[in-house]
Amino acid sequence: MTDPALHQISRVCIIIHVVRIAVAGASGYAGGELLRLLLTHPDVEIGTLTAGGNAGTALGEHQPHLLPLADRVLAESTAENLAGHDVVFLALPHGRSAELAAQLGEDTLVIDCGADHRLSDAAAWDRWYGGEHAGHWPYGLPELPGARDALRGASRVAVPGCYPTAISLALFPALVAGLVEPDVVITAVTGTSGAGKALKPHLLGAEVMGSLSAYGVGGAHRHTPEIVQNLSGAYGRTVSVSFTPVLAPLPRGILASCSAPLTASGADAAAAREAYEKAYADEPFVRLLPEGSWPATSSTLGSNVAALQVTVDPDARRLIVVAAIDNLTKGTAGGAIQCMNLALGLPETSGLPTTGVAP
Amino acid sequence: MTDPALHQISRVCIIIHVVRIAVAGASGYAGGELLRLLLTHPDVEIGTLTAGGNAGTALGEHQPHLLPLADRVLAESTAENLAGHDVVFLALPHGRSAELAAQLGEDTLVIDCGADHRLSDAAAWDRWYGGEHAGHWPYGLPELPGARDALRGASRVAVPGCYPTAISLALFPALVAGLVEPDVVITAVTGTSGAGKALKPHLLGAEVMGSLSAYGVGGAHRHTPEIVQNLSGAYGRTVSVSFTPVLAPLPRGILASCSAPLTASGADAAAAREAYEKAYADEPFVRLLPEGSWPATSSTLGSNVAALQVTVDPDARRLIVVAAIDNLTKGTAGGAIQCMNLALGLPETSGLPTTGVAP
Amino acid sequence: MTDPALHQISRVCIIIHVVRIAVAGASGYAGGELLRLLLTHPDVEIGTLTAGGNAGTALGEHQPHLLPLADRVLAESTAENLAGHDVVFLALPHGRSAELAAQLGEDTLVIDCGADHRLSDAAAWDRWYGGEHAGHWPYGLPELPGARDALRGASRVAVPGCYPTAISLALFPALVAGLVEPDVVITAVTGTSGAGKALKPHLLGAEVMGSLSAYGVGGAHRHTPEIVQNLSGAYGRTVSVSFTPVLAPLPRGILASCSAPLTASGADAAAAREAYEKAYADEPFVRLLPEGSWPATSSTLGSNVAALQVTVDPDARRLIVVAAIDNLTKGTAGGAIQCMNLALGLPETSGLPTTGVAP
Amino acid sequence: MTDPALHQISRVCIIIHVVRIAVAGASGYAGGELLRLLLTHPDVEIGTLTAGGNAGTALGEHQPHLLPLADRVLAESTAENLAGHDVVFLALPHGRSAELAAQLGEDTLVIDCGADHRLSDAAAWDRWYGGEHAGHWPYGLPELPGARDALRGASRVAVPGCYPTAISLALFPALVAGLVEPDVVITAVTGTSGAGKALKPHLLGAEVMGSLSAYGVGGAHRHTPEIVQNLSGAYGRTVSVSFTPVLAPLPRGILASCSAPLTASGADAAAAREAYEKAYADEPFVRLLPEGSWPATSSTLGSNVAALQVTVDPDARRLIVVAAIDNLTKGTAGGAIQCMNLALGLPETSGLPTTGVAP
Repeated sequence: MTDPALHQISRVCIIIHVVRIAVAGASGYAGGELLRLLLTHPDVEIGTLTAGGNAGTALGEHQPHLLPLADRVLAESTAENLAGHDVVFLALPHGRSAELAAQLGEDTLVIDCGADHRLSDAAAWDRWYGGEHAGHWPYGLPELPGARDALRGASRVAVPGCYPTAISLALFPALVAGLVEPDVVITAVTGTSGAGKALKPHLLGAEVMGSLSAYGVGGAHRHTPEIVQNLSGAYGRTVSVSFTPVLAPLPRGILASCSAPLTASGADAAAAREAYEKAYADEPFVRLLPEGSWPATSSTLGSNVAALQVTVDPDARRLIVVAAIDNLTKGTAGGAIQCMNLALGLPETSGLPTTGVAP
Repeated sequence: MTDPALHQISRVCIIIHVVRIAVAGASGYAGGELLRLLLTHPDVEIGTLTAGGNAGTALGEHQPHLLPLADRVLAESTAENLAGHDVVFLALPHGRSAELAAQLGEDTLVIDCGADHRLSDAAAWDRWYGGEHAGHWPYGLPELPGARDALRGASRVAVPGCYPTAISLALFPALVAGLVEPDVVITAVTGTSGAGKALKPHLLGAEVMGSLSAYGVGGAHRHTPEIVQNLSGAYGRTVSVSFTPVLAPLPRGILASCSAPLTASGADAAAAREAYEKAYADEPFVRLLPEGSWPATSSTLGSNVAALQVTVDPDARRLIVVAAIDNLTKGTAGGAIQCMNLALGLPETSGLPTTGVAP
Repeated sequence: MTDPALHQISRVCIIIHVVRIAVAGASGYAGGELLRLLLTHPDVEIGTLTAGGNAGTALGEHQPHLLPLADRVLAESTAENLAGHDVVFLALPHGRSAELAAQLGEDTLVIDCGADHRLSDAAAWDRWYGGEHAGHWPYGLPELPGARDALRGASRVAVPGCYPTAISLALFPALVAGLVEPDVVITAVTGTSGAGKALKPHLLGAEVMGSLSAYGVGGAHRHTPEIVQNLSGAYGRTVSVSFTPVLAPLPRGILASCSAPLTASGADAAAAREAYEKAYADEPFVRLLPEGSWPATSSTLGSNVAALQVTVDPDARRLIVVAAIDNLTKGTAGGAIQCMNLALGLPETSGLPTTGVAP
Repeated sequence: MTDPALHQISRVCIIIHVVRIAVAGASGYAGGELLRLLLTHPDVEIGTLTAGGNAGTALGEHQPHLLPLADRVLAESTAENLAGHDVVFLALPHGRSAELAAQLGEDTLVIDCGADHRLSDAAAWDRWYGGEHAGHWPYGLPELPGARDALRGASRVAVPGCYPTAISLALFPALVAGLVEPDVVITAVTGTSGAGKALKPHLLGAEVMGSLSAYGVGGAHRHTPEIVQNLSGAYGRTVSVSFTPVLAPLPRGILASCSAPLTASGADAAAAREAYEKAYADEPFVRLLPEGSWPATSSTLGSNVAALQVTVDPDARRLIVVAAIDNLTKGTAGGAIQCMNLALGLPETSGLPTTGVAP
């Protein structure tokens, strides 16, 4: 039916080695998203899957959407079970990673989706999380100035929080370009998977559907110091951050509404746009939308893309940036795999969708 | 079964007169909510209902939840049809009210749920809406300083926009008390009924469910000048307003996340709380939540209550206020009826629920 | 402004006695809905509120939408605390009511929203719930043939399950009129509040939003014997019932899709309609929709109305009835209050809305 | 970091030819889903995209989730524009395909996602759709008995409707195995994307969120004759079908609740399970869930899988089958690509995900 003469060869063949992966916390939302993406990654083989309370049960009971892995039985999340893999993803409650990681040799790439190794400042750790600081690992947001290089060849990676991912991408270019004062205000709205599978009354479907609610207001959310760290690091001195999270009735997605006062030198919308175009010209996973379009989380569902738009409010003399991501993909599991690709020297985009699932 | 001796008399009897009501725009969301509330108002009788394109059809086709009015046939929205009522509610697209109102005598109370008579500044009207300014009517947010008195006995009322209602209630007490600089930043998230029944692709269920999206960013939303007017009026000089609206997947509800820099004299959370307690001590429809509780729109669904919480972020040196309302009730129809009660000398709370429908 | 001569007197005054009410299980969904409705009931006074694990906390923590009762502290659900009221509503897990009721004298009206006293057949109780049968109380679906009389003056009432309410109303008229064979098939879709506030993973918001799922399939749902009992009772001999429940992403609402084979004498849509018009001509809370309109749960949200439509499929030779209710209102708390009104000799419709909250 | 000696070679290389694709109706939901899947198909190149009213605009305006194609400009849906491709997908309103297809030669594979060529019976076409019958093309549900062979090498394919896909897969095995009488009853619940992007009031977000509604009741839905055709074809004589569709508040997903009376020879749940295991043993896209698990649409979101479960209700003497699919994937675009693969001799599973996106 088709004329071969009109066609070109469709595949270039590369012989590479299979990377063996383990996932700790495979029955949770972050673990499930890691596995969903890893199933399509061309270079990996999914090895041991572990869990806490769900150890001993089949993955299919907890992640019925992962059909090809439905019959896998979850092992206990012990170093013994996780050993012997090239890469170990930790998708565990905070405070659990340090000890496990210590038992996995430096020849294992350990990628921690939890908070334990995100903060470089031990005092900040103590204030926000408490307990001993487990130390700081290379920070897994490759788009941040300087971050990508630190990830290449790394054997330990701290995956950013979902809010810090969206917010840092939204704001650092304006700070770095000197367009705004280091005094940012953010309200970010999230779907409820961001809270994980914790069984809390306010996360019940009947409570969240039809409701919008604020929480962690007044600088109380644990992602605040991480946002401060990222923006201050990029800017070169301390950035003041006011962050208000809001829970909304959808499973996935973060929409961050970010703003800051224009500097005295000021900027118009075109100059702002130019700064963002420049910052993200070569980034495969950050998309500055066409002028006039504003981000919607639905277009990033299941994709590793952060969609951004920027403008200037001439009356309020503020720069406004809105960012949309999927909190489980670019905000957690996709970001983690992007870091794995960098650490292993694989193409950075392998296994990471840039199309969303919509409507 | 029950012992009469243990009981008290349950009703005090007051003889009052029935107020005859007409609603223009009865097939839309604001019109429907007006009728839902008026059906339980003890002192009104629902007269003529009118519509634009839906004239000639039964109300039940458009508002199947209003069973007692299902068979009412919608008349054309003409002054002739609306005449002869004590109160006429206009729930029409902007630009339509002035002409109709001019044909209804001063002995008719006209309550405009549209934008035509909200802005006092003709230049602002021209910039944001265009066309001739229809003039300024008493502004229907009784809780604003000075507003209640202007509403008593009024024969014309301009009902506030839904966002300005939530945001003005959230912010004026802090401005008036001198707690914050006149430089406010707001991100407000809304359910989709705020956009009315307009047939636009981005309002389709398949588009809005599972999505968060920003719109009217950068000071572009028409409610911005109204917020400026309210806050500046209360504060006594111009307040700078940065306002970003976000669309979320729920039918009703606005959650406004508002903040402003603390003044040099500063304030702690307790002082902030005190200012709000004082501002709203006697307000039947504004509820400052207990410390530690943050507003959720679900608790205001179908009620005329605005739920508030305030705190101070000591790191960012900002005051943060979150307000939740039902955009169709306190944000439109409930607020309109509250104004009717004031204008007619009825008890301000008549016919207005203070309990929400949850979950 | 209004001409008194044109008005009539709006209120007729009746002096009645206040009915004192207690609610056991006030922190759950059924308890919350009872209180929401009772707050607007003209003849009741809300007395003691009790809970299980939440005893000792303020109601406002669990039911933030019930502002007027926010500061009420929940007592333990003991007979001692519930005594001394005219009416006690039990909104408890099944198996808890019998013992409590036994300690409340016959001069107390006890209305059980749980399952304990619904089934008349001890063997059915044993099969479906297990344990000792607590006995059968007057069944609280006044619209069922014969049921209303049994409720007048009753001191004990068993409130129907939410599914049996919708399904019985949908099907008994066709059976009684001989239009269909006693062999009914039902798929009923429900919002998630029907499952209560139980902390189960599959009820988390992230799980239910964006998903439809079947459960209790194959005759396994505990409401099945209650449906059989109701329909068989009305029909006069055993009716075979196939019932499949489906969970959908909304907080409230049941839509029951019901059908049965036409009898040999057959029926057309007009005859079917006539049978339903006749059955429900005098019922204040059952609404047969105009021809061509099909029920939507949103129009019954928060109202005590069951909306029905009936037709005939001439190809499949089946009668199809669709019923919509709010599972918490007509399906539980509203139905319970309707029964209270009947039992106490109050107007049956007191305190019960017939308008829904939409959109 | 990884020891090459431990790894195997991960890719086998096959040289094939690129298949050039055009999509007519690219701005709609079916068109968008086709493109989302085709972007990951290893053997295709996406050529011309066309639209009706949206011709001349960029795809990104309508499908912002398809980033890699955002700048593609939509051409008019003419045969001229569609010519010159190996495969043309038609995702158009019914009645539009026949004329276009007639202008595309037999060397072009034309895959019609619309209804025009599904029904083999001209009288049925006339009754349900009206107008001239465009004829019958090979029916694109490969899992139906005999269907796969007819699709291999085909140059024309009629893609099934979304409901018929779910329902036919749910029921034909039981009919073929003689487990049930040919008298089936189905209630199927769907997300709102099934209605397409049509701008109708009842499809607005504010209307569908929080609501369940029935439509096309009583055998009135146009998918009914297609279900009859499929089941009767498999069974060998006419099957009676009662079909009730229900609209639910989610963007995607169909959950079909299907049942039929057991035959006299009867069957228990184990025998029923065995029949389904046998029917689907070799099917890559039909998954019979483990015993005790019931399908949820969320686990099929974005995947080409139909998830099934079957049981027997011994009291009602009926077999019950529940099927879940994504209406846009297996129900439309995924099914269409599966047929393309078959027609072109590509691996049937190419480009078709078997994992869903959840939560």
